[in-house]
Amino acid sequence: MTILETIRGPRDLKALSEEELDELAVEIREFLIHAVARTGGHLGPNLGVVELTVALHRVFESPVDKIVWDTGHQSYVHKLLTGRQDFSKLRGKGGLSGYPSREESEHDIVENSHASTALGWADGLAKARQVQGERGHVVAVIGDGALTGGMAWEALNNIAAAKDRPLIIVVNDNERSYAPTIGGLANHLATLRTTDGYEKVLAWGKDVLLRTPVVGHTVYESLHGAKKGFKDAFAPQGMFEDLGLKYVGPIDGHDIGAMESALRRAKRFHGPVLVHCLTEKGRGYEPALADEADRFHTVGVMDPLTCEPLAPAGGPSWTSVFGDEIAAIGRERADVVAITAAMLHPVGLTKFAAEFPDRVWDVGIAEQHAAVSAAGLATGGLHPVVAVYATFLNRAFDQLLMDVALHKSGVTFVLDRAGVTGVDGASHNGMWDMSVLQVVPGLRIAAPRDADQLRAQLREAVAVDDAPTVLRFPKESVGAPVPAVDRVGGIDVLHRSDNPRVLLVSVGVMAPVCLQTAELLAARGINCTVVDPRWVKPVDPDLAPLATGYELVAVVEDNSRAAGVGSAVALALGDAEVDVPVRRFGIPEQFLAHAKRGEVLADIGLTPVEIAGRISTSLNVKSGKENDA
Amino acid sequence: MTILETIRGPRDLKALSEEELDELAVEIREFLIHAVARTGGHLGPNLGVVELTVALHRVFESPVDKIVWDTGHQSYVHKLLTGRQDFSKLRGKGGLSGYPSREESEHDIVENSHASTALGWADGLAKARQVQGERGHVVAVIGDGALTGGMAWEALNNIAAAKDRPLIIVVNDNERSYAPTIGGLANHLATLRTTDGYEKVLAWGKDVLLRTPVVGHTVYESLHGAKKGFKDAFAPQGMFEDLGLKYVGPIDGHDIGAMESALRRAKRFHGPVLVHCLTEKGRGYEPALADEADRFHTVGVMDPLTCEPLAPAGGPSWTSVFGDEIAAIGRERADVVAITAAMLHPVGLTKFAAEFPDRVWDVGIAEQHAAVSAAGLATGGLHPVVAVYATFLNRAFDQLLMDVALHKSGVTFVLDRAGVTGVDGASHNGMWDMSVLQVVPGLRIAAPRDADQLRAQLREAVAVDDAPTVLRFPKESVGAPVPAVDRVGGIDVLHRSDNPRVLLVSVGVMAPVCLQTAELLAARGINCTVVDPRWVKPVDPDLAPLATGYELVAVVEDNSRAAGVGSAVALALGDAEVDVPVRRFGIPEQFLAHAKRGEVLADIGLTPVEIAGRISTSLNVKSGKENDA
Repeated sequence: MTILETIRGPRDLKALSEEELDELAVEIREFLIHAVARTGGHLGPNLGVVELTVALHRVFESPVDKIVWDTGHQSYVHKLLTGRQDFSKLRGKGGLSGYPSREESEHDIVENSHASTALGWADGLAKARQVQGERGHVVAVIGDGALTGGMAWEALNNIAAAKDRPLIIVVNDNERSYAPTIGGLANHLATLRTTDGYEKVLAWGKDVLLRTPVVGHTVYESLHGAKKGFKDAFAPQGMFEDLGLKYVGPIDGHDIGAMESALRRAKRFHGPVLVHCLTEKGRGYEPALADEADRFHTVGVMDPLTCEPLAPAGGPSWTSVFGDEIAAIGRERADVVAITAAMLHPVGLTKFAAEFPDRVWDVGIAEQHAAVSAAGLATGGLHPVVAVYATFLNRAFDQLLMDVALHKSGVTFVLDRAGVTGVDGASHNGMWDMSVLQVVPGLRIAAPRDADQLRAQLREAVAVDDAPTVLRFPKESVGAPVPAVDRVGGIDVLHRSDNPRVLLVSVGVMAPVCLQTAELLAARGINCTVVDPRWVKPVDPDLAPLATGYELVAVVEDNSRAAGVGSAVALALGDAEVDVPVRRFGIPEQFLAHAKRGEVLADIGLTPVEIAGRISTSLNVKSGKENDA
Repeated sequence: MTILETIRGPRDLKALSEEELDELAVEIREFLIHAVARTGGHLGPNLGVVELTVALHRVFESPVDKIVWDTGHQSYVHKLLTGRQDFSKLRGKGGLSGYPSREESEHDIVENSHASTALGWADGLAKARQVQGERGHVVAVIGDGALTGGMAWEALNNIAAAKDRPLIIVVNDNERSYAPTIGGLANHLATLRTTDGYEKVLAWGKDVLLRTPVVGHTVYESLHGAKKGFKDAFAPQGMFEDLGLKYVGPIDGHDIGAMESALRRAKRFHGPVLVHCLTEKGRGYEPALADEADRFHTVGVMDPLTCEPLAPAGGPSWTSVFGDEIAAIGRERADVVAITAAMLHPVGLTKFAAEFPDRVWDVGIAEQHAAVSAAGLATGGLHPVVAVYATFLNRAFDQLLMDVALHKSGVTFVLDRAGVTGVDGASHNGMWDMSVLQVVPGLRIAAPRDADQLRAQLREAVAVDDAPTVLRFPKESVGAPVPAVDRVGGIDVLHRSDNPRVLLVSVGVMAPVCLQTAELLAARGINCTVVDPRWVKPVDPDLAPLATGYELVAVVEDNSRAAGVGSAVALALGDAEVDVPVRRFGIPEQFLAHAKRGEVLADIGLTPVEIAGRISTSLNVKSGKENDA
């Protein structure tokens, strides 16, 4: 039996000797490398927090003490130490979530995997403790990358102001988000890292200066009233103490003893304190350390020795098609620039950045800034392309509306991972964009159905210079081309048949699903027309005339049923006095549990069989009603 | 002719003598006090930036140099100096906007009046200059309050990292947002304010320390390698320089000469620089200075001498009804706590805060933190009430979705100033909430139609402990009670008639409009039923059966037509196979120019006459179609 297998919960850690703890750390890394290679998942971040997590669970008493993990993908070690060692179905249907999960454990608090939230959660938890007079510590673990997010700043500003409310912030500083962290704060952290510990220098300095007379008193006394400044002379922990946080560090995050000692000091402090620990993403796994791009941030199913992927390659991804085309556009137009929020490679900007390094900016985990600075860039005469995951655009909704759209800025937002993404679970699905963006005046949304459309629509998007455009496409491989048989106005007709009763409006990648639905319905004697409007906002003015005469319009989208394209189509038909009943197929109003994309789509009934069945029922109900009349 | 009248543009400022500038400042204050008293508008903030604005326009060459105003309500002086001195219709239809406006002037850049955006805009503008090799300066003017917003942090982090990209940040530090600014940053700024200028102290310090030998070299030399720390010992400009920004200050913001000198220094610096200037909100107007609550942040039409309101009082406001009721609830339930984002008084929490000071938090201009810390508070066992203006909730959309709703947190969001707000213009209307919130799983939205409903629904909202709720109501006075004549499930029936053909679904304060519409239609022989669902999300399950048999359902809402309650109703009817045509009346997809609320509603056709007309037309078209068939 390994030591790891003896750990049923945090309490079991406390009896271990120093040697056993070191052995445990080795075992955990072995476990992670093999387990994650088997299922895919977040590897690099978890290899970096092994000792940090062990130390946390030895010093604090979870779940009475609350440990809040920012961007929960760094919680695998925490899972292993809190009774969850079956990683065989990690991120799969029915298996462990890739993030903390309240359903899994009382030790988990925040399930959300968007970055920079932990400090805000911790502030709320600490305030609740204070109001209710409860005991117990609140600890937030946050990466240096996540500190670049505005939410983290808002929280720091609040936490630091409350001198009487204990709260421990552990900064897991690995100098990276996905890629190396950028910005003024990153530079400041680098300064902190390269200094000796303040405590060490203090003894020497105080000793020397106390013996040095200056105009009747010592230099030490002269400086005493400006204690922070004096400390900064030796160890510029600067801005955190400026804000009012006690600073402890820098600590070697791979030294369990040092981490425990620092955490115990922090625990004794009766106010907000920040423990700055230095860790290495990918620690202990050579292939990860050798990968400068992202240190194996996430991996697919692979051979843990050779790191060769073991899952079938599915052809080029949507991301790569976008990446090639935006680079090509960059060559043709010097005014096209690009912005990423700490995800240059995952969003496909690698090639563009290599060719045009002065025309691309990584703004940090800072979607708000991505959008507002894009408005500034557009006003300054450039055409910015903001490439983000669809789910993260929600962070920039106000900026897209108020800074970009209100100012009629020509900015193209490229939303990768739109629709159902699957294994990352509830917070990574890009299922909101086509709904929340409906209200944005002047905004145009394109949902390309295949690689050719993606290329064409990207070019149409960057040609718009007086309004924002959005291009959205899913995760994974781009499928086979879906040719149009005709075009009406801006609408592609994908399928025609005789005496059609149903108009199927397909949004983006739902085209194959719609075509199969049409086949199933045809087999039941119900003929359909299948169209792809390409640009789904605004609704093409040719759609209402086109819909006239059908018994039913069905809109199929990889997006929330509420307030999405289906709603926009229904509104447009009503405005045109075309009262063909509309049925909307999409993602129901719920958060989606992690599972493969296909499994999720089946679970929510977004399949040809289900859609065809529902349309048949509707037609039958309607016929029945007509018969009644 | 006054000096002010001779200023046709910024260039005219440059010839003025020191005495003339002082006289000009006096004239501007006189002008502002009288002009704003006549129309209402933002007074306190503008009285604070008179000298600052004059200095900016003397040192920089707008519009070649770009001056970006954060929260544009501090731009009145800028307007006066850039050719806009007719304030007679300020914020009125056809008059000057209360914010910068590109339509008004080439000197205006950012129209958006949400806070904390200026730094991001400036970063984008500066990047565009750099890419295109253009000359000219970019200056952002931002208040200390706005620095508490996460966007500002994201921008600072980016600006500070680019040592070779000049950008000037003028921090207008008046120690307030509406009310005094809170948080760690505010404390830090206070430290900076109370220190002598660094430059002054430096000479003394260097002189003394150079003469002080320590272990073979001087203390000065010992400290030399840690220059920032040494500087901090005397003037802890700390965190800004830690981030990498050159710091200039603190400067007396009411000393034109000192401001000009600081700005000229900043202008010569080839990198990002922050000029910290101290101003007084309400400067030069005793009644404003005496008002500790908000220093006359905004005023209504008033007598400038007595400050007595000259506009008719319209009875109690929605805000005050909420304020009284939440205080009453606070007395009954110790677990109810409140959060404001720097607007304690405007959102009606004054009374609650006075009675329960330990149960209310001002988090700064930080809506993200308001929402995420509320999730933490709820998880910690309390019931937070987050009171914000409807338009500002957009800043917290991701947090509401991912932190609050995903975690099934019992948090009540109270949205004041929902719907058309009027004079504040495009960015202050609360016309998006009922649309963007449609996608949030589990969320419930209440739109009370009168004071009784507000009180009742607030109590229903705070009783929900496993999901977020939203309560939204408009600006201005709560009108007369609108009694129900019946209730079906959760739906109030407001009006019944014989053989009704149209079901009017009224949302919140649109009830009187709907009742008048029903009257107008009745006069044309078209009878209606008017219902108020009270809770508009989720759609009441009784609505579809209720709608069956009507010729038309019309949904009337003070919210975007796109994706709003009308869409949700149409979706629910379709799901229930109730294919009564739905018509949606609300705010069209456009930004609304400033004017009085009634004028805006008339402009967009959200009036009984227009709605009744449109419904008649629809019925006629349908009859026509039936006749054709």
